[in-house]
Amino acid sequence: MEISNEQVCSAITSFIRKEVKKRDARIVVVGISGGIDSAVTVSLATKALGPKKVFGLILPDSSITPKRDMIHAIDLARRLNVRYKMIELKTIKKYLLQKLPDNKLARGNLLVRLRMSLIYYYAAILNGIVLGTGDKSEMSLGYFTKYGDGAADLLPIADLYKTEVRSLARYLSIPNEIIGKESSARLWKGHTAEGEIGLAYDDIDLILEHIERGIPFSSYKLRKKAAKVKRLIEKNKHKHEMPLVCKLFS
Amino acid sequence: MEISNEQVCSAITSFIRKEVKKRDARIVVVGISGGIDSAVTVSLATKALGPKKVFGLILPDSSITPKRDMIHAIDLARRLNVRYKMIELKTIKKYLLQKLPDNKLARGNLLVRLRMSLIYYYAAILNGIVLGTGDKSEMSLGYFTKYGDGAADLLPIADLYKTEVRSLARYLSIPNEIIGKESSARLWKGHTAEGEIGLAYDDIDLILEHIERGIPFSSYKLRKKAAKVKRLIEKNKHKHEMPLVCKLFS
Repeated sequence: MEISNEQVCSAITSFIRKEVKKRDARIVVVGISGGIDSAVTVSLATKALGPKKVFGLILPDSSITPKRDMIHAIDLARRLNVRYKMIELKTIKKYLLQKLPDNKLARGNLLVRLRMSLIYYYAAILNGIVLGTGDKSEMSLGYFTKYGDGAADLLPIADLYKTEVRSLARYLSIPNEIIGKESSARLWKGHTAEGEIGLAYDDIDLILEHIERGIPFSSYKLRKKAAKVKRLIEKNKHKHEMPLVCKLFS
Repeated sequence: MEISNEQVCSAITSFIRKEVKKRDARIVVVGISGGIDSAVTVSLATKALGPKKVFGLILPDSSITPKRDMIHAIDLARRLNVRYKMIELKTIKKYLLQKLPDNKLARGNLLVRLRMSLIYYYAAILNGIVLGTGDKSEMSLGYFTKYGDGAADLLPIADLYKTEVRSLARYLSIPNEIIGKESSARLWKGHTAEGEIGLAYDDIDLILEHIERGIPFSSYKLRKKAAKVKRLIEKNKHKHEMPLVCKLFS
């Protein structure tokens, strides 16, 4: 990393302050999952704006979300002294799914989009804007739900690889039990990011940096892993694009 | 209009076919509201791909949606011979709102985002992509819900002004009761687009064309209306942008 955690922290808090002002927002709204990305995002927002201008939403689905995630999320909100609201999504999701054919991945994405809808609901009534919590590793791979957790107004930590987020989290004194947890979008029980992607974040970040800087891969093993990363990037490219308009008059 | 309805129809159906192929999709999924935009979109999709590759979702909220919208939507799906599924959203919305502070606009947007979530649910299980139904007038003004009806993979009719969509609808033999209806996002009872915006679509389209082509406004009255249109465009600009990333390493 070329710049220190202190510099990163200062750049991101300035960015948040500037954009909140520019957009005439009174507050920022963030989903707090109990994971490291949202913990870092909400901590930076609180540093940037003070606790009164940050609102957290804790949106567990108790049929999937481990109880400790919920506890970590609440503890963090209290420690930062920000207002928060918890809404349990298990019943509502179950109710919706009764009317739908079953599918594991679709079910997970439905939950994520439901969360986005509630976060924007609060943003609307509080005259706020939404901070997304995606990091650079996830964003680069397209490892997020289009119009779900990928949907936000600002992405404060999206230029930091997961490994850099971990380092920043330690600098921000995020509790160790959050930093040490395995990364997971919790789309289903036992779901882990590294399990689903099939690569460890250390590898992913190394490969992404190689690609970004045009550094050739030194080993066959790394090249093989890189091929997987490149396939994901290509497959998910559309998640970074606005809907394609059929242009008629050009 | 410089090009005929026949040419527009041919350009849009080619666009849909090409993109469906490119994206390896088996089907397109469209929300059918009973309004003119979705009627034209689903008709074009059926022309492009044949009825078997089109799936319609009819998602009324019976506390807001007029019954005739539902009937028009079902009639259209049957007439086009496409598969469709109807899911009533009244109860689910009511259930969600019990847990939320009340707000008319936020409530409307929640409903729209719920629809998007269900449309993507079906897209996932059917290996399909989502067609948005926004027209150029609405898109230009930003008169849509961010991550709601604005969320789609393709926007087939987004380069046609509302007045052009009406002409295309007649060309496509869309039933008159759909073409003649007042435009409405149906975010609340009695909601009409022209009422909320405060301008008729004939005016809006005239003004948008003036702006697009850099033609000066001939009267004070038109200039005043144009100022309103420009304010809306400016205010909603963010709806056309990807979430803003805080760039650290540039």
